[in-house]
Amino acid sequence: MTDSPETTINGISAEQAAIEQQLTDTVLASFANTPDPRLKTLMQALVKHLHAFIREVRLTEAEWNAAIECLTAAGHITDDKRQEFILLSDVLGASMQTIAVNNQAVGNATEATVFGPFFTQDAPEIPLGGDIAGGAHGQPCWVEGIVTDTEGRPVPHARIEVWEADEDGFYDVQYADSRTAGRAWLTSQADGSFRFWALTPTPYPIPHDGPVGKMLEATNRSPVRASHLHFMVTAQNLRTLVTHIFVEGDPQIEIGDSVFGVKDSLIKRFDRQEPGTPAPDGRDLGNQAWARTRFDIVLAPAGT
Amino acid sequence: MTDSPETTINGISAEQAAIEQQLTDTVLASFANTPDPRLKTLMQALVKHLHAFIREVRLTEAEWNAAIECLTAAGHITDDKRQEFILLSDVLGASMQTIAVNNQAVGNATEATVFGPFFTQDAPEIPLGGDIAGGAHGQPCWVEGIVTDTEGRPVPHARIEVWEADEDGFYDVQYADSRTAGRAWLTSQADGSFRFWALTPTPYPIPHDGPVGKMLEATNRSPVRASHLHFMVTAQNLRTLVTHIFVEGDPQIEIGDSVFGVKDSLIKRFDRQEPGTPAPDGRDLGNQAWARTRFDIVLAPAGT
Ligand SMILES: [Fe+2]
Ligand SMILES: [Fe+2]
Repeated sequence: MTDSPETTINGISAEQAAIEQQLTDTVLASFANTPDPRLKTLMQALVKHLHAFIREVRLTEAEWNAAIECLTAAGHITDDKRQEFILLSDVLGASMQTIAVNNQAVGNATEATVFGPFFTQDAPEIPLGGDIAGGAHGQPCWVEGIVTDTEGRPVPHARIEVWEADEDGFYDVQYADSRTAGRAWLTSQADGSFRFWALTPTPYPIPHDGPVGKMLEATNRSPVRASHLHFMVTAQNLRTLVTHIFVEGDPQIEIGDSVFGVKDSLIKRFDRQEPGTPAPDGRDLGNQAWARTRFDIVLAPAGT
Repeated sequence: MTDSPETTINGISAEQAAIEQQLTDTVLASFANTPDPRLKTLMQALVKHLHAFIREVRLTEAEWNAAIECLTAAGHITDDKRQEFILLSDVLGASMQTIAVNNQAVGNATEATVFGPFFTQDAPEIPLGGDIAGGAHGQPCWVEGIVTDTEGRPVPHARIEVWEADEDGFYDVQYADSRTAGRAWLTSQADGSFRFWALTPTPYPIPHDGPVGKMLEATNRSPVRASHLHFMVTAQNLRTLVTHIFVEGDPQIEIGDSVFGVKDSLIKRFDRQEPGTPAPDGRDLGNQAWARTRFDIVLAPAGT
């Protein structure tokens, strides 16, 4: 204590800043004996950024308590079917930033986007031209395309996982019963081509009855995701692609996708087909409208 | 893509860095309409530091998954009596940094330290000279002192909450049954003085059978806390003090307190008294050794 304490930014005295920096240094040093060098790097960087955040915003004890309560509530709402921590990562853009870091542009390779919390391992296989709906409600949508590598060579035998919400905005894992719907996988043909029936994607809110929903409300953000169809494409010696296609003209693209997943290259035309328009595979669609879209998939080399 | 891409640090091209920065900027902008300016500041700073962490360490998707799993496990082990998120904040030094930011030095005011996860609201009141042990096992310890303000004036009617682990290293909330032990509150006298019996503090590990314990093990850190006795002191018009006193000579002080709570000013002599030494209040201690310590408490003005 001096009569005229030196002050730095925000009125923090040099003495106080030194106390705070000393604490950060002590915590960093506590990780000095971490055997795995990568873990050491991660923990020390986490401490550095976490402490910088607390010091920069002058986090109050009440705010710290609110953060602990938010994490606790996220933990308690999370179970086998609900993953609030993934939602939290998603709405903070942390998921997309991780994807950006790990999926750098390689030639004309299709861009990646968020995985989301709704993928499941147990989706059924469908044949070429099959329907992923499995009873989920929505407008039928014909999807076709070709899988190639960045040299333009067709990729046969690619495993194409597809999943989406129904027209009410729910994935099957959100249904009260345990039936599978709105998800399936198929493989690309010898010429790399694929085609299947799905549902025309519609906007849906991410689950917002938990702490993430509260945060979105308090910050005046929409929980709604731009309409999309999820893809995960795996093939030998090629980089696994996790992505969506979005619906051109969906107003939510302008409002802002709640998890920052939209990329211009992933916005596709979904052309509405009037009732009575013959389907490409001769399917009888009765008296309903349907849609069709095309998504050509370019896979980057593995290890890029 | 150019033939000779410009690179910046870590081999990240300028183009890639721009993509990553653009994403951060989009996420920051999504909070632009937050009505409460403080919440806006907090969320934007959180996003800025979180994205900086991910970009700096080039977080892999496997590491992101591990982080989600760690938070999920923390959520599932947390209940009314176990608070893994507080432990996580504690072992990362985030709790101490928050305390440092909110309890800046004011004259000779007693320093604050971590609150910890073991405080409860329902501790019993004891009279002056009473015993907080409530049946918890350990060496009896006489604690006395005086509460004053930074001008040296005695503070009467201060509420002094005290809590500690037993000699086996457990707080009552960790017992299988629901009895209360090792915690109580009393008030300071007209002259600011207080005195009570407690247990001589012993080292104990923080609960380490969850994800925080796994992290400490993987980073070669001790889960053990330096021996301490918790205090929370509240009085009208004075800043609430949450602190501990530590035991001079405890080797864990050198090894490193697992939650970074030790401050030199909080290390006190606990003088061992040989069996048969008369107690200050005439208590019959039979044939056992006991200890005594003194802790004078100086409270800062409220709002500092
Ligand atoms: Fe989705
Ligand atoms: Fe403790």
